[in-house]
Amino acid sequence: MTAEATIDTGTLLERYLQVRRASEELCKPLAIEDYVVQSMPDASPAKWHLAHTTWFFETLVLKPALPDYREVNPQFAYLFNSYYNTLGPQFYRPHRGLVTRPTVAEVFAYRAHVDREMERLLTGAEQKGWEIPEEVIVTGMHHEQQHQELLLTDIKHLFSRNPLYPAYAGDYSLPARRARRSPGPMRWVKLQGGLREIGFSGDGFAYDNETPRHKVYLRDFAIASRLVTSGEYLHFIQDGGYRRPELWLSDGWGAVQAEGWKAPLYWEEKDGQWFQFTLSGLRPVDPAEPVCHVSFYEADAFARWASARLPTEAEWEVAAAGVPIEGNFVEDGFFHPIPLRDPGEGISQLFGDVWEWTASSYSPYPGYKPPEGALGEYNAKFMSNQYVLRGGSCATPRSHIRVTYRNFFPPQARWQFSGIRLARDL
Amino acid sequence: MTAEATIDTGTLLERYLQVRRASEELCKPLAIEDYVVQSMPDASPAKWHLAHTTWFFETLVLKPALPDYREVNPQFAYLFNSYYNTLGPQFYRPHRGLVTRPTVAEVFAYRAHVDREMERLLTGAEQKGWEIPEEVIVTGMHHEQQHQELLLTDIKHLFSRNPLYPAYAGDYSLPARRARRSPGPMRWVKLQGGLREIGFSGDGFAYDNETPRHKVYLRDFAIASRLVTSGEYLHFIQDGGYRRPELWLSDGWGAVQAEGWKAPLYWEEKDGQWFQFTLSGLRPVDPAEPVCHVSFYEADAFARWASARLPTEAEWEVAAAGVPIEGNFVEDGFFHPIPLRDPGEGISQLFGDVWEWTASSYSPYPGYKPPEGALGEYNAKFMSNQYVLRGGSCATPRSHIRVTYRNFFPPQARWQFSGIRLARDL
Amino acid sequence: MTAEATIDTGTLLERYLQVRRASEELCKPLAIEDYVVQSMPDASPAKWHLAHTTWFFETLVLKPALPDYREVNPQFAYLFNSYYNTLGPQFYRPHRGLVTRPTVAEVFAYRAHVDREMERLLTGAEQKGWEIPEEVIVTGMHHEQQHQELLLTDIKHLFSRNPLYPAYAGDYSLPARRARRSPGPMRWVKLQGGLREIGFSGDGFAYDNETPRHKVYLRDFAIASRLVTSGEYLHFIQDGGYRRPELWLSDGWGAVQAEGWKAPLYWEEKDGQWFQFTLSGLRPVDPAEPVCHVSFYEADAFARWASARLPTEAEWEVAAAGVPIEGNFVEDGFFHPIPLRDPGEGISQLFGDVWEWTASSYSPYPGYKPPEGALGEYNAKFMSNQYVLRGGSCATPRSHIRVTYRNFFPPQARWQFSGIRLARDL
Amino acid sequence: MTAEATIDTGTLLERYLQVRRASEELCKPLAIEDYVVQSMPDASPAKWHLAHTTWFFETLVLKPALPDYREVNPQFAYLFNSYYNTLGPQFYRPHRGLVTRPTVAEVFAYRAHVDREMERLLTGAEQKGWEIPEEVIVTGMHHEQQHQELLLTDIKHLFSRNPLYPAYAGDYSLPARRARRSPGPMRWVKLQGGLREIGFSGDGFAYDNETPRHKVYLRDFAIASRLVTSGEYLHFIQDGGYRRPELWLSDGWGAVQAEGWKAPLYWEEKDGQWFQFTLSGLRPVDPAEPVCHVSFYEADAFARWASARLPTEAEWEVAAAGVPIEGNFVEDGFFHPIPLRDPGEGISQLFGDVWEWTASSYSPYPGYKPPEGALGEYNAKFMSNQYVLRGGSCATPRSHIRVTYRNFFPPQARWQFSGIRLARDL
Repeated sequence: MTAEATIDTGTLLERYLQVRRASEELCKPLAIEDYVVQSMPDASPAKWHLAHTTWFFETLVLKPALPDYREVNPQFAYLFNSYYNTLGPQFYRPHRGLVTRPTVAEVFAYRAHVDREMERLLTGAEQKGWEIPEEVIVTGMHHEQQHQELLLTDIKHLFSRNPLYPAYAGDYSLPARRARRSPGPMRWVKLQGGLREIGFSGDGFAYDNETPRHKVYLRDFAIASRLVTSGEYLHFIQDGGYRRPELWLSDGWGAVQAEGWKAPLYWEEKDGQWFQFTLSGLRPVDPAEPVCHVSFYEADAFARWASARLPTEAEWEVAAAGVPIEGNFVEDGFFHPIPLRDPGEGISQLFGDVWEWTASSYSPYPGYKPPEGALGEYNAKFMSNQYVLRGGSCATPRSHIRVTYRNFFPPQARWQFSGIRLARDL
Repeated sequence: MTAEATIDTGTLLERYLQVRRASEELCKPLAIEDYVVQSMPDASPAKWHLAHTTWFFETLVLKPALPDYREVNPQFAYLFNSYYNTLGPQFYRPHRGLVTRPTVAEVFAYRAHVDREMERLLTGAEQKGWEIPEEVIVTGMHHEQQHQELLLTDIKHLFSRNPLYPAYAGDYSLPARRARRSPGPMRWVKLQGGLREIGFSGDGFAYDNETPRHKVYLRDFAIASRLVTSGEYLHFIQDGGYRRPELWLSDGWGAVQAEGWKAPLYWEEKDGQWFQFTLSGLRPVDPAEPVCHVSFYEADAFARWASARLPTEAEWEVAAAGVPIEGNFVEDGFFHPIPLRDPGEGISQLFGDVWEWTASSYSPYPGYKPPEGALGEYNAKFMSNQYVLRGGSCATPRSHIRVTYRNFFPPQARWQFSGIRLARDL
Repeated sequence: MTAEATIDTGTLLERYLQVRRASEELCKPLAIEDYVVQSMPDASPAKWHLAHTTWFFETLVLKPALPDYREVNPQFAYLFNSYYNTLGPQFYRPHRGLVTRPTVAEVFAYRAHVDREMERLLTGAEQKGWEIPEEVIVTGMHHEQQHQELLLTDIKHLFSRNPLYPAYAGDYSLPARRARRSPGPMRWVKLQGGLREIGFSGDGFAYDNETPRHKVYLRDFAIASRLVTSGEYLHFIQDGGYRRPELWLSDGWGAVQAEGWKAPLYWEEKDGQWFQFTLSGLRPVDPAEPVCHVSFYEADAFARWASARLPTEAEWEVAAAGVPIEGNFVEDGFFHPIPLRDPGEGISQLFGDVWEWTASSYSPYPGYKPPEGALGEYNAKFMSNQYVLRGGSCATPRSHIRVTYRNFFPPQARWQFSGIRLARDL
Repeated sequence: MTAEATIDTGTLLERYLQVRRASEELCKPLAIEDYVVQSMPDASPAKWHLAHTTWFFETLVLKPALPDYREVNPQFAYLFNSYYNTLGPQFYRPHRGLVTRPTVAEVFAYRAHVDREMERLLTGAEQKGWEIPEEVIVTGMHHEQQHQELLLTDIKHLFSRNPLYPAYAGDYSLPARRARRSPGPMRWVKLQGGLREIGFSGDGFAYDNETPRHKVYLRDFAIASRLVTSGEYLHFIQDGGYRRPELWLSDGWGAVQAEGWKAPLYWEEKDGQWFQFTLSGLRPVDPAEPVCHVSFYEADAFARWASARLPTEAEWEVAAAGVPIEGNFVEDGFFHPIPLRDPGEGISQLFGDVWEWTASSYSPYPGYKPPEGALGEYNAKFMSNQYVLRGGSCATPRSHIRVTYRNFFPPQARWQFSGIRLARDL
């Protein structure tokens, strides 16, 4: 995580509280029961997300910085540590949903306690001579924003397992429906290769995995002007996409057969019509929307079917460089990708809507050095068996994303808001 | 389920409401969060138990009997059917814990609705000419009592997974501690064999699997005067019981190795002392208590180590015939087996405290006929790969048990309150 | 294993060599390659059967009896011990097929060595004063006969996995075809209940699990005059037998779904006709033959569909008492059940053709005591989760079977020659 | 696979027969039994390798080229197709070891038949006007060489499962022992970065995945002068390497725990000394040898422990460019990596001994196009979840390797001769 320029603690506290409130806002539609359950090992209970993000500040900020800090419960250090071996043993991840206590109310009390102490730290530091680990606090805020997105994707997965199809949010489709029309044909935007630079440098926050900024050599290439739509993906399905091994990577074809994939996650066919489970309940698939909840394998197979390929992360970053960060983010309240309203001339939908799978394995940039200590475990140890996704989604906070941001998931993962942008050689 | 003599509907309603209230009483110590989770596929969420027992009355009593009955939610028929193929498809059992909605409040409302309708049926039947399926209603009450016991054993399992060791009930050990002293030596009580009768006949309720009453030929045998204690079981452990394959059935030894068993379920050793998780939290093992939470395999291995064997269910029933049904039941509020206070002359602890594993596979009695319809699935289809247990436990309602009662669980099951009584040949 | 009356060692040696030669005769049709492979964990390579039966004599007879006995290879004690914990650790069963050395030739040399030493023991005992453990030798011979049957059923399973459908034997169907006609209708033969005796007593060999002879009380019952045919089983299939949960035990229905059972093992449908893999290759299903390779669950479901039930092992033994031991055994060289030629008046096909599933769990007889030492592990430790089968099969040596013989397999096992005889209450 | 310059058919036939003979030479030490068994799903029986490589020529050369070609057995097309969906369905891979027929003799006859037909094709083409698919034939020869290496690694795995530790070859350690002394300290060789080229172009054979030759931008870096030795790896073990999660990628640490890794594959500790199973049987670990049979995860963890990293494949190729292809290959007959004899000034052991794990995920080179047809499945569909290894091993034919050669295996694979070379940033 790259150094933050000095900021005044008042602003820091304000931003801290804003992020913390945003997490709690997202929980408003939940019943107590919804906070508790872990619907698969990859997911976590909402309650756990609220507690784990709090544990981050307690463990990495308050305990080192506040000499008289008192824990709410010493066992929380064990229960709510996710994967930081440096910070001690962790409760077995697939059992996170078995821990009905602390209750939801107790978790909110834990949050309130930590927030009060953070406030005490930030307002009292100057007088008491406490050292403020600004960089860690800012990292903790970005960390909490990541968990805001996960909280939503995990709740969506949980609700999707319930035959009553509970809705998290109101009807996202009202605003979307206004726009429901074809987003127009996809165009190929040509970009020049050569020696280019990607990666983060400069002021402001970035994760360590975005650094160092470095040179890459690219060939000339073309990138799609917009995301692949559900309508286009339906053609792939109807053309036997899930039954033709020649379109798939070998491991992808294995996943198709082992998992019985026939469509994106959350899609189901009823009497010849396709529906999808959304955070607003079960809805017909809208062909104008960006397709969503596909794995890397599906994105790759679709690209092969379309005589194209996925962009590398370097190509994506070069294409997105300088494009303003605008799009359909969590603050828009749709919690679902929406049809492109205004195609324009350039490359659309680079930010928001859906995370875009790239052809790039998640690996360290040349010259990458993980930070010392616990934060060294944040990103570096996951650099195998994952692919990079770019651009943020409809569940990402707007202030969380950057052009250099590298998200990563295993190639078979489908429960994130993940979609497809095509590229091709020239 | 054997015919009930005619009873007046007022009494029936009163008993019905009593059983229903008892279920809700047992839930009083639970937080909302505790109702939701399924801690293993064999267990069910408390919420599910409350709804399923309600579904039983709705489906088997109200829908057939009340012409104008209106369901709360038609999908409950699917969600809360346990295993009755005759009554339609069932929600996938291992996913019962994923259904956070209906909420706990909605489940209680469902219960209230069905209770009101049951009251309407029972009070209005005479006037409206509705036929009252008394036998089914009585079966439903016994069914709900079975689930009261399961609700407790499932909550115990759930709480045991939580490193905070939540307690369901207050300190059971206070009354027990008064009695904490050796229950005295186990004596062998000799019983005469010959042609004997077992099984249910006569008035009152019994499950179909207890019938018909029939002759069996028994050899002379001896049965233990009391249950095996935790202290005696500790000797088995200390004598290498879990490390000596010659003491075990082959499948039992397989389970020891696959599961890593080293002691009864819920026991754990800390610094050389044995503790057990109870519904009152973590407690030291009391050597005077009946040992509990052992599988059939462990009971069988202990018996072999003790140069004895388990009784057959016929032997048990012959030994228990005429013994008054007294003991430590759920109404006593200990939720745990307690040391024998007053050994007496005869056979003690036959009822309550712990279910007693027998050497008998669960199979149909000679001449057994399962009932027609859905109730034919209640017991008959489970007659393979299970063993019979007798006598009820500290989680069984006192009015639920009979000398002919046949409980049954797979030989590896340990989460019920199951213990050991020895027998031997003469 | 019950005591053998004194016999002269010459006769014993002759019988020993006869049994040993029979094992090797059965291997004549095998290629070297066929001896090596283990096609599932329940099965063993032919090579292993040949070595394990040899190990039995080496370990339990030669090492104790011959002071100067020298092993071929000390590691064979580990490699070829099946499950006798008393005799030391065992090579991991599912890996028996990974041990390509010793080669087949080396295993035959091992057999020859042990046979020579057995001959030396039996011919030299009187002069040298060696004690002959006759009982153990006779048990070893019966043990080897059991493995002769397993060798055939394991080879059948192995060959069935090969898409080339290799044949072990010539055309069994020639003699069978002469008889191919309906075996005539099944009749119910009524038998009187009351206090009866079953189990072994008297002279000659029997396994320990057949003892002691003891009283059982039976109700009057009827037993089928012959085995269920493949034609009758086809009606069950065509009537939706594998799609109707109400016909099945709960665990049986679970097996149907988990395993995708649609017919007996080795049956396959091609263009609307049913074929079965046999030791003579792939053949059309002959409706006149006894049905074969069904599990206990299928036998039980078929019986329920036929408004009947399976006999208990006591009923079977009472029905078979006094019936001469005649039938289609391994010496007949069909290696497959054959149609009933001559129905007669009484109960047919009790011996040979197929093992008959009974309704009885495999459990100790009242008063049963396992032998001391390693032979105590032969039968006793398997007395859970298995069902008793009676009567022998077309792969059983004729001299191996008795009316009191108790075979046992888990309820889902299908690779033995196991079939169905019906019974019913009167 | 890149085009071969025109060659005369006589030379082609000679080279073909040489490769074919080499496969059969490698089988000389095998007993019939050793050809049959598949010791894990990743491995194949020796018999299968011999048949599959033959199937390749039959299917891709003889059937298209020889109008009157007659198959030995039409089902071989199904049995011996590995993974080419384009060429029809494939026998289930994990069951390759269940197919005892065709016998080994029949497989050799199949080889002889195909070899005769290949000879007929190559000698008669000119006269008959048949078209010779030279490129496919050459690919088939390289394909067979790859399987020669796999045959050895699969036999090694099979033999290692046998507690008798059979030896495939004589004592490799005699020549090695002469050299047994420290290979001297590892030196860092500095290399200059900048815009470089990697990948294949020009004449001669190469696989499609080595193309196109393309530019990459590299930073300056240092690469180790030699391979990591077993002695150095022992220090890693002794320093708690397998017990310290901070040294491992998250998935790697998961593998350590799930698989119980404590040392390289085939290593075992006896009374404080380390032994390794080799193709010459069980031998003490020689600290001077290159360490072998480590996974990518172990290579990566070792590098982190050594404050270094693995080279990328581009770095490796740049370092190896121009180095002569000399080393310990299969023809040397050691079948095991050997200590470095003559360190010299430059970079040693780049070729032979062990495959060297790189930090690079196996992915397509920029501008890569897979070939049309079945050969398009050869490499392209495996481009996920694998890492690139470089340089060949002691089981690789010398004529098979190139500086641009990209081998690939999943990061947890250990049964190949895979080792470690370090790199670091400058």
